[in-house]
This record gives sequence, C-alpha cells and structure tokens, in this order.
Amino acid sequence: MLNVGVIGAGRIGRLHVNYLKQRKDINIKWISDLFCDKLDDWIKESNISNKTKNYQDIMNDPEIDAIIICSPTNTHVDIIKDACKKGIHVFCEKPISLSLSEAEEAVEAVKASNIKLQMGFNRRFDKNFKLLQERLSDGELGNIQTLRITSRDPEPPPLEYVKNSGGLFMDMSIHDFDMARYLMNSEVTEVYASGGAMISPEIEQYDDIDTAIITLKFENGALAVIENCRRSVYGYDQRVEILGDNGLISVDNTQSSTLTFHKADSISTQNPPYFFLERYSEAYEVEMNYFIDAIKNDGDVLCSIEDGLAAQKIAVKCKESLNKQPAKLQ
Amino acid sequence: MLNVGVIGAGRIGRLHVNYLKQRKDINIKWISDLFCDKLDDWIKESNISNKTKNYQDIMNDPEIDAIIICSPTNTHVDIIKDACKKGIHVFCEKPISLSLSEAEEAVEAVKASNIKLQMGFNRRFDKNFKLLQERLSDGELGNIQTLRITSRDPEPPPLEYVKNSGGLFMDMSIHDFDMARYLMNSEVTEVYASGGAMISPEIEQYDDIDTAIITLKFENGALAVIENCRRSVYGYDQRVEILGDNGLISVDNTQSSTLTFHKADSISTQNPPYFFLERYSEAYEVEMNYFIDAIKNDGDVLCSIEDGLAAQKIAVKCKESLNKQPAKLQ
Amino acid sequence: MLNVGVIGAGRIGRLHVNYLKQRKDINIKWISDLFCDKLDDWIKESNISNKTKNYQDIMNDPEIDAIIICSPTNTHVDIIKDACKKGIHVFCEKPISLSLSEAEEAVEAVKASNIKLQMGFNRRFDKNFKLLQERLSDGELGNIQTLRITSRDPEPPPLEYVKNSGGLFMDMSIHDFDMARYLMNSEVTEVYASGGAMISPEIEQYDDIDTAIITLKFENGALAVIENCRRSVYGYDQRVEILGDNGLISVDNTQSSTLTFHKADSISTQNPPYFFLERYSEAYEVEMNYFIDAIKNDGDVLCSIEDGLAAQKIAVKCKESLNKQPAKLQ
Amino acid sequence: MLNVGVIGAGRIGRLHVNYLKQRKDINIKWISDLFCDKLDDWIKESNISNKTKNYQDIMNDPEIDAIIICSPTNTHVDIIKDACKKGIHVFCEKPISLSLSEAEEAVEAVKASNIKLQMGFNRRFDKNFKLLQERLSDGELGNIQTLRITSRDPEPPPLEYVKNSGGLFMDMSIHDFDMARYLMNSEVTEVYASGGAMISPEIEQYDDIDTAIITLKFENGALAVIENCRRSVYGYDQRVEILGDNGLISVDNTQSSTLTFHKADSISTQNPPYFFLERYSEAYEVEMNYFIDAIKNDGDVLCSIEDGLAAQKIAVKCKESLNKQPAKLQ
Repeated sequence: MLNVGVIGAGRIGRLHVNYLKQRKDINIKWISDLFCDKLDDWIKESNISNKTKNYQDIMNDPEIDAIIICSPTNTHVDIIKDACKKGIHVFCEKPISLSLSEAEEAVEAVKASNIKLQMGFNRRFDKNFKLLQERLSDGELGNIQTLRITSRDPEPPPLEYVKNSGGLFMDMSIHDFDMARYLMNSEVTEVYASGGAMISPEIEQYDDIDTAIITLKFENGALAVIENCRRSVYGYDQRVEILGDNGLISVDNTQSSTLTFHKADSISTQNPPYFFLERYSEAYEVEMNYFIDAIKNDGDVLCSIEDGLAAQKIAVKCKESLNKQPAKLQ
Repeated sequence: MLNVGVIGAGRIGRLHVNYLKQRKDINIKWISDLFCDKLDDWIKESNISNKTKNYQDIMNDPEIDAIIICSPTNTHVDIIKDACKKGIHVFCEKPISLSLSEAEEAVEAVKASNIKLQMGFNRRFDKNFKLLQERLSDGELGNIQTLRITSRDPEPPPLEYVKNSGGLFMDMSIHDFDMARYLMNSEVTEVYASGGAMISPEIEQYDDIDTAIITLKFENGALAVIENCRRSVYGYDQRVEILGDNGLISVDNTQSSTLTFHKADSISTQNPPYFFLERYSEAYEVEMNYFIDAIKNDGDVLCSIEDGLAAQKIAVKCKESLNKQPAKLQ
Repeated sequence: MLNVGVIGAGRIGRLHVNYLKQRKDINIKWISDLFCDKLDDWIKESNISNKTKNYQDIMNDPEIDAIIICSPTNTHVDIIKDACKKGIHVFCEKPISLSLSEAEEAVEAVKASNIKLQMGFNRRFDKNFKLLQERLSDGELGNIQTLRITSRDPEPPPLEYVKNSGGLFMDMSIHDFDMARYLMNSEVTEVYASGGAMISPEIEQYDDIDTAIITLKFENGALAVIENCRRSVYGYDQRVEILGDNGLISVDNTQSSTLTFHKADSISTQNPPYFFLERYSEAYEVEMNYFIDAIKNDGDVLCSIEDGLAAQKIAVKCKESLNKQPAKLQ
Repeated sequence: MLNVGVIGAGRIGRLHVNYLKQRKDINIKWISDLFCDKLDDWIKESNISNKTKNYQDIMNDPEIDAIIICSPTNTHVDIIKDACKKGIHVFCEKPISLSLSEAEEAVEAVKASNIKLQMGFNRRFDKNFKLLQERLSDGELGNIQTLRITSRDPEPPPLEYVKNSGGLFMDMSIHDFDMARYLMNSEVTEVYASGGAMISPEIEQYDDIDTAIITLKFENGALAVIENCRRSVYGYDQRVEILGDNGLISVDNTQSSTLTFHKADSISTQNPPYFFLERYSEAYEVEMNYFIDAIKNDGDVLCSIEDGLAAQKIAVKCKESLNKQPAKLQ
C-alpha cells in the first residue's frame, strides 16, 4: 500500500484521483488545494483522508511515499526539490517550469536523489502511439526520413488561461516535442517555427500565437514537422505519420463510434473524440500504472525529468525562432 | 447496497464478478459452482463472502437481492421459477432454455411475479449498436427495407462445447435474432435458413452446422439476412447494415488500434478484436449497470425475458427450416 | 478491320457505339433501330455508314463480321440463330430470352456453329471484380464458405420499363447470378428467394418485386447471399465479400472523389457513382475489347452463351421459390 | 482543326501526343526531337505528318496554330519568345526556365503578345484537386489557417536526371508551390526550407537534396507546409489537407482497386498508383482540353505563365533558405 498525496485539485488533479481511488494498493492520504474547502463532497467520495491548503503539510507527513504534482507550473520546481530531499517519489505534470535554469536545477536535484520522477506526458501511454513506438523500435520501417505530428485542440482555452500558460509551444506543442523525441529515439538539434494568432488575435497582447508549423531536425539527420492549432472544430486531432525506408507508418484519430450513414448527398462517419480527457482516458490510467509499478518494483519510469527538460528546451528554441529569418518573396 | 449471488463461475460468471466487485453498491455475497473449491484465490481477491456447490444455498439466503445466472442452460428455468417465488431479481445469460415449453413456463412465472429479469444479450449495450438503435428510433432512415447482420466467431468452439450448445442457431445466432428484433422494432413472422458443416464436418454427428445464411421476414414487411460462421480467422466479425428510404446506416467492426502501415506491396491496418470478451468488454459493464439501475430505481430492464423467448423461438424455427424446400436446379 | 452492325440504338447501343467508333480496327457499317430517323446527327458524328429500321438488312450484308445485339429481349433468340447460320459473331446483351426453352435453342444453335458469342455481363470486366476473381483463382483464400453480393440501383426504373423487364430476378439480379458463378467457379444447385414490393407497391400488379434477399447453394457446398434493391439513394451500390479459410476478401464501392470534409458534426466523404454507366464505364470498354480480341485471335470469350443460360436458369428458379415455404412464426 | 507541333518526344511529349492524336479537331503536323529518327514507328502510328531534328522548322511553318513544349528546360524561353513573335499558342511544361531573369523575359514577351500560354501544372486538372479548389472557393471552409501538401515520388530519378533537373525545389516541389497558390488563392510572402540528401547521399555533389519540409507564409496570413521526398516505396503519394474555420477538407490518395483482404494477421488494402502518369492520366487529358478550348473560344487558360513564374520564384527562395538560420539546440 502506497500513501499518496495529490497537490492541486484542478481538472487534471481530479482526473488522477478518480483513477487512484480505484486501486486497492493506493491510499490517497492527502489532497492540497487553495480551494479545497469547496471540494468536501468530492474529497469524501474519493476516500481522501486529509485536505490542506498548504502542500507543505503533505511534504511533512513522514508516511507519504509519493506525490502527484498538478499545481500551477510555477510551484513545480520547489516541490520537486523538496521531494528529492525527503525521498518522496514524484509524478509531475508538464512543464517542469517556465524557466530553463530552474528546470535544470530540478533535474540536478532528481539526479542527486534516489526518487523516481515521472513526467505526465500522457500520450506516450496511449495504446496506439505505444504500438507505433514499438513497431519503430523493431526496425520495421528502416531509417526514418520524416515524421509528422498533427496536434490540434478542438477549441481555444480562455484568455485567462492563455496568459499564464507559457505560450503555445510551452503549453501545447511540448506534448508533441516529447512525442517526436519518443518516436524518433534521437535528439533535436535545430528548430524553425512559423505561426500566428489566427483564431484569437487578442492573444497577441500576450505575445502568443494559436497556430504553428514547426520544423525539427534530429541528430540522426531526419526531419519532423508539427502542425499545431488551438482550434479544430471537428474534434481533438491527434495523428502521426512517419516516412521511412520501408514505407509509411501512421496512427490515425480514434472514432467515437463506427457508425456510418450513407445518405443521398454524402457518406457521414463519426468525429474523433472532442476532448483530450476522452481521447486519452485509458492513457491516463496506464501512465499512473507505470509510475506506481516503477516505485513498487524499483523500475524505470517511461518518461523521465530529463525528457521533460528536453521537450522544454525545444519549446524555448521555438519561441526564439518564431517567424525569424525566412526568405522573403515580397 | 445490493446483496448479489452469482450462480456459475465459468468464463462469463467470472467476467461479471470482475465488474461487480468494483462497484461500491454491490456486495457479492455468494458464488456457487460445482468446482468452487478450486477457485479459492479468485474468490478471495474478488471479495466474495461465501461459496457453495449448491446454488440453493444462495436462494435460501433471505438477504439476497439479486442473482446472476451463469450456470449451464438446463438449470436456468428452475432457478428463475424459484427466484420468482422468493422475489429475487434475476440477470440470466442466454438462452432461457433449450426447450420452448420450459422457456414459456419461465416467462409466465416472471410475469406473475414482481421481480426484474434481464437477459444477457450483451450486444444491445454496445455503444455502437445502441447509437444505431437510437438513430433508427429517431426515424432518420425512414422505412426500412432490409437489415443485414454479419456475425462470425474467430474460431470454432471445442467439440465438447458444440455437443451441448443447442446448435448454431440457439447458441450463436440467437444474439443476432435479438439484435435484429431490437433494431427493427418489429416481430419476425417467417424464417428461412441455409447452412452446412463447412469448417468442422465432425459436428454433423450432432446434427449441427457451423455456417449459415438466415433470412427473416418481419411484421412490418422488411427483410433481414444474417450471415453466421464459427470461423473468421481475421477476428471477431460483428457488423450491421440497414437499408432504408433515406440511405444506409451501418456499424462496422471496431479496430484494436488505428495504426496503418503503407508498405511496398500493400497497406496494412489492424484487425478487429479477436475475442468477444475484448470486443464487448464495455458492453458487459453497461448491461450490468442497466440491471442494477432497474432494481434500484424500479425501472425497466432493456432486455426482458419476453425478448429472450422471442429470440429462442426464431432459433427453433430456423432449425426446422434448415435447408428445407429450396428450389432445385439440378 | 472488322465490319460491325449494331442492332438497337437505345442507351446501351449508343454506349457501345461511342466506344467502337474510337477503335481504328472497327468499321461500324450499320445501325438498326425503329427510330433511326431521329438519330441522324448521332449516326453522322459516330461515323456509321448505314442505317435501317430492319435489322435483317444487317444480317444480309455479306461483309458484316459481327453484330452487337442491344435490341429488346424478345428479338435476341431469332437474331442469334440467324447469326449462327450466317457465321456472324455476336455480342449479346442480357438476358438471352425471357423463355428458358428459347434460350436453350439459342445455346444449341451457337454450339453447332463456329461463331463467337459473348454475353454482356459487363461486371466481369470491371478491374476490381476481375482482380477479385484472379485472387480467388490463385487459391489465396482457400475454400470458400460464403459469398455475399450487395447490388442496388440508385432509383427504380419507370413502371413502363418494369412491365416488360422480366422482373427483378431476370432483369437485375441476373448480373449478380453471373457474378456469383464467375467468382465461385461452381454451379448453383439450390436457391431460395424472399422479397417484396417495398419501394414501389404499384409493381405488384405485374407480379414483380423491388427488394430481394436470395440464398444460393453451390455444388462445392458453399453458400451465397444476394441483396438486391431497386433503390439506394446514396448511389449505385456494388459490393462483394467472400469468406474463406484464410480470411475475407472484399471489393468495396468506388468513390467519385477522395475528398473528405471533417466538420463540426460529422466527417463527410463522397458517395459512390450514382449511375451504372459511370460506375462501369471502363468495364464496357474492356468487355468490347475482349469480344473483338476473341474474334481477331480466334480466342475464347470471357462470358459465353452457356453463362447467359446458367444465370437465366437461376432467375427462373428464384421466381418459383419466391416467398415459398418459409417456417412461420405466427 | 488546329495544326499543332510537338517539341520534344520524351516521355511527356509522347504522353501528350497519345491524347492529341485521338482528337478529331487536332492535326499533329510536326514532331521535333534530336532522336526522331528512332521514332519512325511511333510517329507513323500517331499520324504525325512531319518530323524534324530542328524545332525551328515547326516555328517557321505558317500553318502551325499551337506548340506543345516538352523539350529540355533550357530551350523553353527562346521557343516561347519566338512563338510570341509569330502568334503561335504555347503549352509549356514546367519550369519556364532555371533562370529567374530569363523566365521574367518570357513573361514579358507573352504579356506583349496575343498568344495563349498554358503551363503544364497537371495537378490543377485532377478531378479531386479541382473539386477541392471549388469547395474552397465556395467559402465552405471559412478562413484558412494551414494547408498541408504531401507529395512524394515512388523512387528517385536517375543521377543523370537529377544533375540537370534544377534541384528538388525547381523540379518537384514546384508542382506543390503551384498547388498551394491555386488552393489558397493568395500569394506567398515568405518561405523556410529544411532538407537533406537522405535517400541518395550521392546527389550532394550536385548541391541537391531528396527530402524536404517547406513552410510557406501567405499574404492572407495563412501558413502552408509541404512535405517532399523522392522516395515513397508504397507508391506515388499525393495528398492535401486544409484546416479552416469550419473544419478540415482533405484529398486523399486514389487507390488502384477497392479490393481488401482481411487476413489472420492484418487487413490489406491496395496501394495508390505507383507512377505519376497513372495517377494523373485523366488530368493530362483535361489540361490539354483546357488549352485547346482556350484557343478555340478565345478563353482564359487555367494556369498562366505568371503562375509558372510565381511557382519558380518560390523554388528559388527555398533554395536560398535551405537549412539557413534555424535555432540551434546543441
């Protein structure tokens, strides 16, 4: 039985609790959240023993084996460093930090400790992308020439969210940077990003964009392109295609149902799931299983803090590169 | 909290237990099985309080609210009648009985009682077929001309199973008869069946077949065709197509993954799930939810004993009709 | 250079002319049609040398090498017999005749002659169905258990046409009977047909139906089911699926375009071609090439008059069997 | 009747002749080719009246109405200028020239003349891409955010060809630049290109690449990405996807057949056509029809020399931009 504390009871924090509470080997001993007083019903039905507004209470509980960090990004590094000192295992939502130097400090702290830290790049745990990664590892495709990731949210987040998100690259594309590294099994050496505020011009005031095309070059010589947009009205668009010596391997969107209607004017099929929680519901369970198994069996996590740092660095470089130095035609 | 007894701990009995044990409003108070002594580990980890070789022990426990009948077909009717007397709700796997007259007795007993009885026609609870049924109910298709069900198992069952199964129509096609009635919302008036022992000639000794094409005529004038086979090496094949005034609505097979490989010689996609437990894993949970909700809220079950009887009658008539009176060409 | 006469300048006659006039090795020397006076422009632009209201003029021209019979069904047998006498090769649209005994006479006449006669079962010449047939012949599928043909016209023909058509089985299903024989490479021994006038109740006065489900049994033990309907509002529906030892081979509908629109409420793809002339435009050319090649190289036709007779016999037996002797439930 | 001269009897020249010879309103009066002596059989069966090694013979024939330029790129501009002087209409294969200044001279000459000049961007005439363009013009998609073109040849051309091709951007991507402008209906203002010689390292000696990812920015603010590769072993890959306010419109690859094989280990469908001549066979006819119609009806060509110049300019800028100024990670 592991004693677990969950830090942050927002959407993603509650998601993890909903799964953890079903596991018989997990005791959710603590939830910390500034607004935890409003969550009493949920805390009760989730069988959580204690609540606090101050996550330090969790860190100071000597019985805690692991924490799940779902609090705002600017709190992550301090919590991670503290956990390293106290030998508490960490599951941390992305990104590590909005500051590269702080993130590097966290990486150093983890390296110097004995804790397990797994980053919450949930897509690695999706059965489709996992299968894709396995097929690539098996060498079935031969050398890779280009990788393409299509990644689009159904609708833009609220302006309030955008303001503190770290921007498109750090908030959204970072998942795709991780996926690209995971599938390519090579490090990114160069990036070039184009983009604009096409959907929500008002986000320009925060120096942010909502649509981007990002080119990555890898150490192994291959290229990748990532297409991001904050809006795809047809649903959550999550696809990958990889071209190699022996052909093209792809993972397409999932469907909410296999129903098809052949009508007089067209053939209609069902949209992909609209929301990321729906699309990746299974993946969220699988990633937590991996984390718990790594603790219990003293095994490796599938997605380390170094992976988190690597993706973050790409995001920083994309921001630097954005719309810089194209060849001009007019 | 409902006290539940599960009668029969074979594959399907254990499947239901695996779901029921996760529900906080269900106490699995009893399991009965002739071989329950060999199941101690599973019984323990399933949190089942009592075991017995004699299902009567369950029926005699005054605290039991509901039973799940997963025992051999020839025990169903007696258990149902007993449950009616004692006011115990019943979830019953198909078919009710191999004998029509006995099945009719069970129907009468249920009608005269106040219990809920839900038949285990799990496919009604699959999200794809449910959505199809809803779209049809909405009248989107207009009048229906023909309905087609493709239903094939990946591989034939053991000869030992075939022997006591009641035959293809009663054991396998009965699910399709129920689906046809469910989707068409009309009663079958005529049937014609063709078939043969094409995969396993040895089953002819049991007067059974493994491949069939069945034509049904409905009260509303529409036709249906069911294609059954005990073997489809590419996986569990479960499809429906319905032609109506406004087009064609269909439900296709699900895929185990959306991975596609474009190779030099062909494009490969992933097979449908191989096994019915995998294909309908969600549906088994949904059907149990319906049953429990019906008990708790004194609501209607989605699939009644009358539905069970209706499907059984079609199976009996198919057997009568098999290969009778075609027009001969040679 | 072959001198060809075309008998009948209706839709299908003009179709064949449109292709034949492009071939440099074909001289369309005659067209015969009762209404040929109204076709002068078309005759001129088609480079047809002579017109007549009496097809005998063609038969009496000693230079004629081959005729294309596109006239009403009741004229076919006399023309064929005459062609046999005069050694003129024949391409004949289906069916041979509405009378089995007359059709048999035509078969005897052809057998006793040296002429080539090819039946116009155009679907055999479609690249998709040809490829399917080749794959089956290669034995890739192993033994066949069941074959399914879906064959639906986009809309019913005029009542005037229905009246003289010979009925659904003889007019429409006959193409599917031929396809079933072609793919299965075995003879039909038994048939059972269900059907009704569901779309156009007014055709009941001509003892005809518009919707049918037909079960065929073959000498090799396999079964087939054919689903016919005179109306599929989503376009011309032409599909085949075959289940065998090694899996399922199918040919799906073609698409008029590969354009897809992912919209907020559904994903739309393009309907199949609406009309048979559009769907089989290439096949009509290929069948004519086969016929001409058979004449020039003294080779075999792909579809003989015996094939025509075999399909016709199945049609006759379907009519006999229609709605006879099902097992009754009510 | 138009008198036409074809300059260049290579693969593409012969392709155009094969179609032109079928048209009754076209007289192919001349073919010019350095190796025309070896083509006597083909010239005869193509009904071409005259042959020459010197295309000037064609230009000097006062009866010539139009020429089809299929000769090496370095001859195009001189021929175009000459045609302008003599009032001969021009169909010209891409690119206009490898030199921008020469191409601009050709554009000026055409502008100052009364001739029709159509560039051979055949993909505009493909029914799928045409339909896509029409749907976009109808405004169905709303504003466009991003456009993606996937364009891959099945296998690299011979080294000898690569050497004189002008490089990947000028030889291959130029088709995609034209497609992007055609669909987006806006001009490109910026480009960024990444790429490498991944398939054929030996082409680096010619300062060429075989794989590229190109980002385009348009005047209307939208972005495009083009993925090119000289090798896709699964066939000729030609796809487009466009994201806009109302969803995603795409054109997928065509299939050589709709045959599908569900096997025990996977589901196999048919590859796209392997070769561009096969994929665009219809489009080549349609483009020639447009050209001839423009001459006959004094109408507009669908693809002008200005379009040719615009695509060429993008190619030049891509070469300038190649692998310049990315943000470096290591």
